[in-house]
Amino acid sequence: MALVEDGMLLGLGTGSTAWFATEAVGRRVREEGLRVTGVATSVATEQHAASLGIQLTGLADVAALDLAIDGADEVERDTLRLIKGLGGALLREKMVAQAARRFVVVGDPSKVVERLGAHVPLPVEVTRFAHEATARRLAGRPVLRVGKDGAPYVTDNGNFIYDCFDLGPQFDPGALHLALCGVAGVVGHGLFLDGVEQAIIGQPDGSVQVLRPGIG
Amino acid sequence: MALVEDGMLLGLGTGSTAWFATEAVGRRVREEGLRVTGVATSVATEQHAASLGIQLTGLADVAALDLAIDGADEVERDTLRLIKGLGGALLREKMVAQAARRFVVVGDPSKVVERLGAHVPLPVEVTRFAHEATARRLAGRPVLRVGKDGAPYVTDNGNFIYDCFDLGPQFDPGALHLALCGVAGVVGHGLFLDGVEQAIIGQPDGSVQVLRPGIG
Repeated sequence: MALVEDGMLLGLGTGSTAWFATEAVGRRVREEGLRVTGVATSVATEQHAASLGIQLTGLADVAALDLAIDGADEVERDTLRLIKGLGGALLREKMVAQAARRFVVVGDPSKVVERLGAHVPLPVEVTRFAHEATARRLAGRPVLRVGKDGAPYVTDNGNFIYDCFDLGPQFDPGALHLALCGVAGVVGHGLFLDGVEQAIIGQPDGSVQVLRPGIG
Repeated sequence: MALVEDGMLLGLGTGSTAWFATEAVGRRVREEGLRVTGVATSVATEQHAASLGIQLTGLADVAALDLAIDGADEVERDTLRLIKGLGGALLREKMVAQAARRFVVVGDPSKVVERLGAHVPLPVEVTRFAHEATARRLAGRPVLRVGKDGAPYVTDNGNFIYDCFDLGPQFDPGALHLALCGVAGVVGHGLFLDGVEQAIIGQPDGSVQVLRPGIG
């Protein structure tokens, strides 16, 4: 994590690859005396960062973050547009990303796709009230996410999530963003359409590939 | 309420003028044996309609409504674009309006404006998590709505509301809708930008003025 500099306000992501990034930051705090303040995208990350000695603050208390680092469920190679939200924290993750001057994605090669929607459904967070009515206005084949107990999964914000499968080859992420914006009851969705500066893709041999938008 | 026909699925609005519309529907149910099924935009309307003998169902259980009737905080004369949400139920009201094939607004002359934003702020519903960070990205001068006890007002969906004052003379409702859509943490807003078929404006002398979009 050479991107991280002394004094930074840092968004800390959630998920397996982001976990390693937080580990690396923690190591520099311990070994180099790096001073950073983190804003976590989940309770799990908050606990992990605290255990590594990374000082934390809340998103509400900072005007902007210098850098946010997070994983993604899919990264579109040429554009660095993302699908996120399989972990359920899409809203908090997007809020942290939007508050950051620079947003860097970390992942492994399995996350890189030629076109968004290749492997994963699009998570859409909706209010509970009449969520069935909202679902009828979503794209593709929306499936209510349920937990291990079979009950609807509830987000940190008290909402439900529909995972929209089968968006189809004609799926246009920009147009879908606008369409979802027009549906009352939609709280947020997992499309991250701009702002990713670079994607750092760890390779099986231990090397790292850096993708930038428009370069690939 | 001559608009209401036998067998209709009907969205029933909230607020002082919508209250009279619901009264009128109830009178026709009692006096003419009109059969309609209502979907209420609030608990208050639900209780009112039930007391009048109007049969009710939930928004989740109907594919579409034939007609929705609701009030507004501002009606823009030429376009019939609306600001709603001073009552706090903007999301539920918008969901009902969007589910309706026809949407009719009722009001008094004080609600009719030449340009939206003339008299009232724009309510924006936001998630509670880091709502201060969301507020920094809203338009105008956002003020957190509080209840009589001074605590933040909480919507039916468990969210907060910021009332955005001072949107300014350059305020473009369509552009603001798109901008708000791009802000993670925004759940909904009180701009209703299309779909109003007509606005029925009761005059002080008891007569009624009907506005239609593009006619005024």
